Amino acid sequence: MTDNNNLTDKKFVYFFSSEETEGNKDMKPLLGGKGANLAEMASLGIPVPPGFTISTEACDIFNKNGNQLPDSIKAEVKKNIAKLEQVSGKTFGDPENPLLVSVRSGAAISMPGMMDTVLNLGLNERVVEGMAAKTANPRFAWDAYRRFCQMFGDVVLGVAHHFFEEVLDDVKKTKGVEYDTELDAEDLKSVASRFKVLIKEKSGQEIPDNAVDQLFLAINAVFNSWNNQRAIDYRRLNKITGLLGTAVNVQSMVFGNMGDTSGTGVCFTRNPSTGENVFYGEYLMNAQGEDVVAGIRTPQPIATLKDIMPDCYDELVAIRKKLEQHYKDMQDMEFTIQDGKLFLLQTRNGKRTAHAAVKIAMDMLDEGLIDEKTAVLRVDPDALDQLLHKQLDPVAVEKSKPVAKGLPASPGAAVGKIVFSADDAVEKSAEGDDVILVRTETSPEDLIGMDAAQGILTSRGGMTSHAAVVARGMGKCCVAGCSDAVVDEGSKTLSLGSLKLSEGDHITLDGSSGLVYEGKIPVVDPDLGGDFGRLMDLADKFRKLMVRTNADNAHDSDVAIKFGAEGIGLCRTEHMFFEGDRIKAMREMILAKDVDSRRAALDKILPFQRSDFKSIFSVMKERPVTIRLLDPPLHEFLPHEEKEKEVIAEEVGVTVEDLQRKIDSLAEVNPMLGHRGCRLGITFPEITEMQTRAIIEAALEVKKESGIDLVPEIMIPLVGNVNEFRNQAEVVRNTASKVFEETGDKVSFKIGTMIEVPRGALTADQIAKEAEFFSFGTNDLTQMTLGFSRDDVGKFVPEYVKKNILEQDPFQVLDQTGVGQLVRMAVEKGRSVRPDLKLGICGEHGGEPSSIEFCHKTGLDYVSCSPYRVPIARLAAAHAALKEN
Amino acid sequence: MTDNNNLTDKKFVYFFSSEETEGNKDMKPLLGGKGANLAEMASLGIPVPPGFTISTEACDIFNKNGNQLPDSIKAEVKKNIAKLEQVSGKTFGDPENPLLVSVRSGAAISMPGMMDTVLNLGLNERVVEGMAAKTANPRFAWDAYRRFCQMFGDVVLGVAHHFFEEVLDDVKKTKGVEYDTELDAEDLKSVASRFKVLIKEKSGQEIPDNAVDQLFLAINAVFNSWNNQRAIDYRRLNKITGLLGTAVNVQSMVFGNMGDTSGTGVCFTRNPSTGENVFYGEYLMNAQGEDVVAGIRTPQPIATLKDIMPDCYDELVAIRKKLEQHYKDMQDMEFTIQDGKLFLLQTRNGKRTAHAAVKIAMDMLDEGLIDEKTAVLRVDPDALDQLLHKQLDPVAVEKSKPVAKGLPASPGAAVGKIVFSADDAVEKSAEGDDVILVRTETSPEDLIGMDAAQGILTSRGGMTSHAAVVARGMGKCCVAGCSDAVVDEGSKTLSLGSLKLSEGDHITLDGSSGLVYEGKIPVVDPDLGGDFGRLMDLADKFRKLMVRTNADNAHDSDVAIKFGAEGIGLCRTEHMFFEGDRIKAMREMILAKDVDSRRAALDKILPFQRSDFKSIFSVMKERPVTIRLLDPPLHEFLPHEEKEKEVIAEEVGVTVEDLQRKIDSLAEVNPMLGHRGCRLGITFPEITEMQTRAIIEAALEVKKESGIDLVPEIMIPLVGNVNEFRNQAEVVRNTASKVFEETGDKVSFKIGTMIEVPRGALTADQIAKEAEFFSFGTNDLTQMTLGFSRDDVGKFVPEYVKKNILEQDPFQVLDQTGVGQLVRMAVEKGRSVRPDLKLGICGEHGGEPSSIEFCHKTGLDYVSCSPYRVPIARLAAAHAALKEN
Repeated sequence: MTDNNNLTDKKFVYFFSSEETEGNKDMKPLLGGKGANLAEMASLGIPVPPGFTISTEACDIFNKNGNQLPDSIKAEVKKNIAKLEQVSGKTFGDPENPLLVSVRSGAAISMPGMMDTVLNLGLNERVVEGMAAKTANPRFAWDAYRRFCQMFGDVVLGVAHHFFEEVLDDVKKTKGVEYDTELDAEDLKSVASRFKVLIKEKSGQEIPDNAVDQLFLAINAVFNSWNNQRAIDYRRLNKITGLLGTAVNVQSMVFGNMGDTSGTGVCFTRNPSTGENVFYGEYLMNAQGEDVVAGIRTPQPIATLKDIMPDCYDELVAIRKKLEQHYKDMQDMEFTIQDGKLFLLQTRNGKRTAHAAVKIAMDMLDEGLIDEKTAVLRVDPDALDQLLHKQLDPVAVEKSKPVAKGLPASPGAAVGKIVFSADDAVEKSAEGDDVILVRTETSPEDLIGMDAAQGILTSRGGMTSHAAVVARGMGKCCVAGCSDAVVDEGSKTLSLGSLKLSEGDHITLDGSSGLVYEGKIPVVDPDLGGDFGRLMDLADKFRKLMVRTNADNAHDSDVAIKFGAEGIGLCRTEHMFFEGDRIKAMREMILAKDVDSRRAALDKILPFQRSDFKSIFSVMKERPVTIRLLDPPLHEFLPHEEKEKEVIAEEVGVTVEDLQRKIDSLAEVNPMLGHRGCRLGITFPEITEMQTRAIIEAALEVKKESGIDLVPEIMIPLVGNVNEFRNQAEVVRNTASKVFEETGDKVSFKIGTMIEVPRGALTADQIAKEAEFFSFGTNDLTQMTLGFSRDDVGKFVPEYVKKNILEQDPFQVLDQTGVGQLVRMAVEKGRSVRPDLKLGICGEHGGEPSSIEFCHKTGLDYVSCSPYRVPIARLAAAHAALKEN
Repeated sequence: MTDNNNLTDKKFVYFFSSEETEGNKDMKPLLGGKGANLAEMASLGIPVPPGFTISTEACDIFNKNGNQLPDSIKAEVKKNIAKLEQVSGKTFGDPENPLLVSVRSGAAISMPGMMDTVLNLGLNERVVEGMAAKTANPRFAWDAYRRFCQMFGDVVLGVAHHFFEEVLDDVKKTKGVEYDTELDAEDLKSVASRFKVLIKEKSGQEIPDNAVDQLFLAINAVFNSWNNQRAIDYRRLNKITGLLGTAVNVQSMVFGNMGDTSGTGVCFTRNPSTGENVFYGEYLMNAQGEDVVAGIRTPQPIATLKDIMPDCYDELVAIRKKLEQHYKDMQDMEFTIQDGKLFLLQTRNGKRTAHAAVKIAMDMLDEGLIDEKTAVLRVDPDALDQLLHKQLDPVAVEKSKPVAKGLPASPGAAVGKIVFSADDAVEKSAEGDDVILVRTETSPEDLIGMDAAQGILTSRGGMTSHAAVVARGMGKCCVAGCSDAVVDEGSKTLSLGSLKLSEGDHITLDGSSGLVYEGKIPVVDPDLGGDFGRLMDLADKFRKLMVRTNADNAHDSDVAIKFGAEGIGLCRTEHMFFEGDRIKAMREMILAKDVDSRRAALDKILPFQRSDFKSIFSVMKERPVTIRLLDPPLHEFLPHEEKEKEVIAEEVGVTVEDLQRKIDSLAEVNPMLGHRGCRLGITFPEITEMQTRAIIEAALEVKKESGIDLVPEIMIPLVGNVNEFRNQAEVVRNTASKVFEETGDKVSFKIGTMIEVPRGALTADQIAKEAEFFSFGTNDLTQMTLGFSRDDVGKFVPEYVKKNILEQDPFQVLDQTGVGQLVRMAVEKGRSVRPDLKLGICGEHGGEPSSIEFCHKTGLDYVSCSPYRVPIARLAAAHAALKEN
């Protein structure tokens, strides 16, 4: 197919100019974002250099046609060139009055990796001489020409960029100057001529003299770049599907570097950092866009344009207003002034900080520009994270150089003195010092130290390592897996490359970027001002998912409620076992030689558990609280270090050998798949009994004291077989009955399970016959469904992401295809036997927006996440609901 | 509902006698096995004491009716009593001529745990006196009465058995005698009277005098026992569902203990040990069934009955023939001779050894008694295991007492001197000694030692531990997880309870029972005679599944072919890396600091791999061979012991510290879910390249030498994401192309994957687009789907089985509900995109009959199992196909 009759009926090229415009902003799929917006601006009467857009359908045909443009489309392009010549009053290849154009790609979604831009197309040796003469500015003309040669050679003929830079450097060196601006017309003429030799040499091709030939080569290059590897990878990684191709924008050139009445700039309709409703931007006189980027001269604030070129400024301010009113969003605009005349080259929705996003959304709502739903959708839920934590002072950060980079495991900023053990953290912080706990990796024994520290730095472990998960739970800054760091806990030193730090030295962590700084950098507190609260209220109005939190103490519960949590989705009971006397009793329990001594040890733990639950119930009041029974393998509670073993053996009253034997016997090859979860409760029912008793007694006491009718939700972990659930549910029910009998009082309670073993999802219909609720433990479900130990994935997942085998870390973003399939299956099977089955998610994914959208679509009742992610979840849930309509 | 009108239409009681019989052998669901066969025998004219069977439907109604028999059924029972009195010419409760009956339970499927038997029902003090007078044998009469009291008291009134024994012991002690037979009539009278006091005391109840009352109490007890805990557990564990209840057989008593013309015996229509077609059995004159069991007198071989009571013997021989011809299977019969008259009390299909089963099936086929299909179905596939290995001499075993018991991890028998290390095993066996390798547990480093040993004994690990899996693969006897054994590898001692053995001491292992014996017990070789081969040929005729083997060397491949393997379903390449210089090169590869030195080490491994594959291909010829690329995590190849580390560091040329650092860096928290399988090939593509090259070069060489057109199947392990497969398949294809180019020759090959990660099954449609075959790795799939680390399940799975949470070890019998669901899903999804997708299974389950039936039903093409299980798989596959019709 080089030509096709049906093509003749179809329009592939869309003209835009102040006189005649064929496209509009709603034609993005066909014209790309840039083309659609140029057409829209032209229609609005905003000065735009005229031009035309070749549609994405043409790209599709080009690709299907063996990378050739059919003759009919070529003819249409030529007709548009003629029209452009007519409108601009210039002619392609005319040395007296040449039409020069820019050629740019532009898909419906902004996409790096494709061919970008060729400027000044239409030039050749003859035309450039004419232009030099006509403008009386040979340097301008030759500069334009050598730029054209460079861009055409690079992006159209495929000669690598650095070859051109080498030539340019050589010329500057020969002349003994530093900047391009110091080269004169003759120098640039020789650069252009050397560029042409270079192109011939490297590509075997020459830049055609004929402007139309130049143009078609450039169009082909743009269309070809749609299918280059980088662009394909980008689309795959960003799951961009359903696009036909890229459009090509051909637009007559305007020059901001034609003298002191010319210039170029970028501006925003509002302040993109603060969101303030002020005109914001910067410009350079006598410059082209690239010069602003090159940073040789400092651009001026946009307001100063008023003094220099008041007419242009006023016109720009009017356009600012017009565009924002029209697009109903903050605009990011590019403009060029050529010889005192203003042209807009681009407008698009501007990027902004989270803070600005919130303020702009609320302001525009107040201004009547947008409605409530739009306002909610304007703020990216993930961006909220920035607003909820302390941040490094941006001014101070500018001046500081990080000394290491780890994973941004838990957002926020922290400054403090280095300590190397949990005990030191507690001690030093009790003395009033701010401390940073630095560990190779953390274990549950470090909990109190993590709690006492301002922030945590680990050299090992990923985004879901113990340190990361716990820190996020605590809302505490954490940089994890900092492979640059060598932690020597023995000698109490931290090496970061060549830098060696000791206990007591100050460091600063940025948990949002993963950067580590030496010394102290000031931090600023989060501003949860009125706009934030208003946005959250709106989100709550629209969302359908409930949002709970993962919390296991009164403090976190309190924080979560302030952030809007509507209950606890996951209260882990094991964290409670690590403090003070509890861990001792816990160890006694583990080391018990028979049921009776195990019961005796559990009796010591009971009052602690009960009072923990009481304090949580007292904070949560009538909000639902889901308590998970003991989950981790028992060896996690035993000591790892020799010295500690001696102390503990003494405390518990066994020999070190006995203790060691117990530690050995509890050791597991794959603890993740070992003796944990409900398997513990099944082999040691007395643990389940104690925990149930603590929960029920606490609920009864709170009920008695406050009159609140609590309904605790008791969750059996790691159920893969309905018989496991039956066994444990019976223990729970029997224990509760016993407590009711003893106290003569009752509370309602629910018994449900975690769905975190694949078999649990596969047999959810059997389990739902017995269980009153499911909570998807997507952390473990991901581990088992993918066969990824989250403690060990560091060895291959980075390689997987690099090689595009994985698009995202499945522990951060729910794998909807695999894990999600099991979740959907469990939801369907579960509800098929128990239509009112309560469903939630309590894995890390419960706080991740795309996963939350999945939960909404899958019909869950709630998501549960760490306290600091509750606002994000609320907003993400609202987005999910609004996107559905 | 105590009575119900519709019940009156229905028949619940079925009479049997030589005159009139209402049931037959096909009514097992209604009358139970015993009742149906009694009726059948009566119809055949075989002398059976008359009686009647109360149907299982009556049991169902009894259970639904608050454990009461409706009046209508009671009336029907009474009518049958009257008929029985008439037929027998005796009367319930008549001291002159009393009708005595036995009451026995009998469900459609033989089921321990229910109420068993009450004999002599109908006796009371008055009747016993009459009987004593009439038989002129008071001892007989009083013995019958005290037995009745004991059985009625125990099974109907619930007085524990041991109380009666205590009374009996007391009486014997008082009298100064040892055996019951030494008690006279008076003694037994006093025993009976003390039994009655005991019953009253313990149960608060008395045995009613009235025979009808006795009978209804006994019937109720039988029906109640259907729902006692033991019976319920038994049905659940054996998945017995769909039964209404048990039947009750009421049969007039005959006595084998009425003097020298009376007797009792058990016989088989053929020899149940050898299968020989000879009449087989034993009997005791003047005795009751219990006396045979009690073992006071030695029973006589059945043939001797011919001399004592020729008429009875001839009659019995005629019955033997009649029953076998009628039932067309070997029968197990119970008979009683009362006063010279023969009665049959039971007939059923007889249990037999595997050897006998094969012989009987083939003989009966030859005799025209059964057809081919029936012959195949007559042999339990699992039983074949006995036939394929050396066995302990049964005579010698009788005289030996085991000293410990472990898991029957790999069948067969082995005798040898104890050694405690692989090196010692190799050394001692090279010196000509038979050795048993004794280890706490084995690791891949022990492979050569295992190979050199006659058998393996480990103190830790389960049925799927390394020792067990490898030993089964080798067809080598193994007792694993022998928790009685304490192995001290340092001092080279083995403690088995109080017994302490040292290196060089002889022990004997029975891998089929898990028993360990001190010293030497003779072993006998397997007899794979003609009947076995004929059975296998028949199985092959009917089966639809292909049977392959798991083998990774020429020897195993050869053994497997002899056992009928049709290809290799799983050739693990990692075992090849452990011998001699290979492990050194492997370690060099692991310790390599960059790609180049890794390649250099791999270049050393290449010739070994190639020659391994060559020898396998040469044996397998045109049969398909599936080779799995490297699977285990690399740390498995590094040493664990300090001394060895020094040696290896020296060998490979690194410091011990460097080596230790590498070992530490490779250590994983959950190696099962870590850096293994295709994850290795993705991070180190040069490994995949080397392995592919070895496979393709080997295939080309064999093709060249033999002219056989091989099609190697290259299997990518642990794929959970189609991108993993794409990545590795590309490496394989590129490498193969390179080899083809270099050699100027080509072979066809297939690329497929293991489905062993749940996500692989869930996304099988995506993967099948790229993969040409799937092999289900159900070992790992079970681990991940259930979240069970098979190395760690020892901590809770025994408890699970004990508490009925699990019915079977899911690593032995495929969990069809969970894991099987994923397999079915993957089959459907895979075939939906590639209808000719080749599907097999290569986990341990590939040799387990119920799992093989599942594979057949699910539509797999083949199963693959260890060489020694190939015949079992062939037969199981035939059963699966035949059962379907």
